[in-house]
Amino acid sequence: MAVAHFPCIQFTRVTPKGSCVFSVGNYSRSNYKRRYLVLASATKLEENFGQSKVETLLNSIKWNEKGLAVAIAQNVDTGAILMQGFVNRDALATTISSRKATFYSRSRSTLWTKGETSNNFVNVHDIFLDCDRDSIIYLGKPDGPTCHTGAETCYFTSVTDILNDQQQAEENKLALTTLYSLESTISQRKAELAAPQNGKPSWTKRLLLDQNLLCSKIRLMRYSGREEADELCRTLEENEDKSRTASEMGDVLYHALVLLALKDVKTEDVLAVLRHRFSQSGIEEKKSRKSHS
Amino acid sequence: MAVAHFPCIQFTRVTPKGSCVFSVGNYSRSNYKRRYLVLASATKLEENFGQSKVETLLNSIKWNEKGLAVAIAQNVDTGAILMQGFVNRDALATTISSRKATFYSRSRSTLWTKGETSNNFVNVHDIFLDCDRDSIIYLGKPDGPTCHTGAETCYFTSVTDILNDQQQAEENKLALTTLYSLESTISQRKAELAAPQNGKPSWTKRLLLDQNLLCSKIRLMRYSGREEADELCRTLEENEDKSRTASEMGDVLYHALVLLALKDVKTEDVLAVLRHRFSQSGIEEKKSRKSHS
Repeated sequence: MAVAHFPCIQFTRVTPKGSCVFSVGNYSRSNYKRRYLVLASATKLEENFGQSKVETLLNSIKWNEKGLAVAIAQNVDTGAILMQGFVNRDALATTISSRKATFYSRSRSTLWTKGETSNNFVNVHDIFLDCDRDSIIYLGKPDGPTCHTGAETCYFTSVTDILNDQQQAEENKLALTTLYSLESTISQRKAELAAPQNGKPSWTKRLLLDQNLLCSKIRLMRYSGREEADELCRTLEENEDKSRTASEMGDVLYHALVLLALKDVKTEDVLAVLRHRFSQSGIEEKKSRKSHS
Repeated sequence: MAVAHFPCIQFTRVTPKGSCVFSVGNYSRSNYKRRYLVLASATKLEENFGQSKVETLLNSIKWNEKGLAVAIAQNVDTGAILMQGFVNRDALATTISSRKATFYSRSRSTLWTKGETSNNFVNVHDIFLDCDRDSIIYLGKPDGPTCHTGAETCYFTSVTDILNDQQQAEENKLALTTLYSLESTISQRKAELAAPQNGKPSWTKRLLLDQNLLCSKIRLMRYSGREEADELCRTLEENEDKSRTASEMGDVLYHALVLLALKDVKTEDVLAVLRHRFSQSGIEEKKSRKSHS
């Protein structure tokens, strides 16, 4: 896929037949926004897979009475659900070809590629179908916040908060899974250090304030005479039970997350490093080029 | 919420008004399946939140022309998207009340609670609405495999594999995010050790076979004269740059995952430990009781 910069030329979509559709010129309110052209090769689908295979795949989807299926964009590193939309045949074919998450707008009756106005594309690494073939995951890496509000994901309204009248306190609380919920809690503790009167004492804060204590915890060494052993390794070496291993690994993760917070490094960045090292997914990232510099 | 076992009595749903609906007796093909009764308190909604708040919430959802919205069940620990269905007012109200992920079956025109036949309920910890309020995440912990095929999730068909004719080789390849993809790769390497002629040499295999090497890597000590320091802590103590921290944390995670594989401990189990220790989510797990022993 060739990628080039052409301000004012807006990529719109690739048709199932491989044609490239784009529009020229765009001004948004007061500020001129640069647009980038994603020059998906007109023969991309045939080159990679053969047109008939894509057609067969598209025919296998259980489209609803309006020719649509549900598509969910998910962050390949964190697992965060970024947004959910609908796709028709063209939208799915475009995503397969361009590797930019593309949907069908029911209100505007057109295809739209997430990022075509914000430049926050979702770079799709692989696409998964569910057992019924009427629901699709775009597993990919977002270039920036996905929600039009500027939030990282569109899911920032907790029903529990609403029912508990915590709209103000917990506004924009993202739907975070365990690791990222813990990361967020540690980040809050770090922020509270700037205004200590507003927060309660916590072990996390103590670790954040005492680098030596934190590092000694991560090293997890136990001095007993001349013995040095860390807790996690001991569970293997001394054949301790599985729950002990899980618990010690939890300790390692927690303390490491505190260190990451001190260094302003996100867990997502660490996972991106691992993905670059180990990724063996079908559509490898090296094939997926960013659409803008 | 009272929980009891009554074979042959099947929980069906809780109405928005808090009434408990259930059916009696069920035989499935050749084998008799035990059913469990989820006795959601008839006054649950009122007790917890007040009926009017739930009504207001339900009124705020942008239901489609059929009175439905998309609902996605996501594993609170791993972030895996378990399944996707649709909900109407009753289904969402039931989920809020029972904390078991409940959907509306468009084909059967009835509510159904995931797990009502398999006992693999999805225990909902919190519910999130998207910015448009027409898409919902059930963030919860599954009691077992969610897909009716027995797979952990419904998303096990990779479009890339289909287009590359890898159906056989890669069948049931789940939509795994980075950490779990790495975990899966390590698990494959471990399996290959049993048939060494079938696999290539790899660093992961070497670590799996050499416990001392693995533990020395996790301890990450560097002996340089009398100096002992692990790489991750050094990035903090010596103020190395953020990319170095991310890289070293990647090392720690990778080697720790190899150790977990040797101990047959899943990353998900570690995250469950962390959730139990640190969870502060609105609907806490301690309030969410398992529906079966």
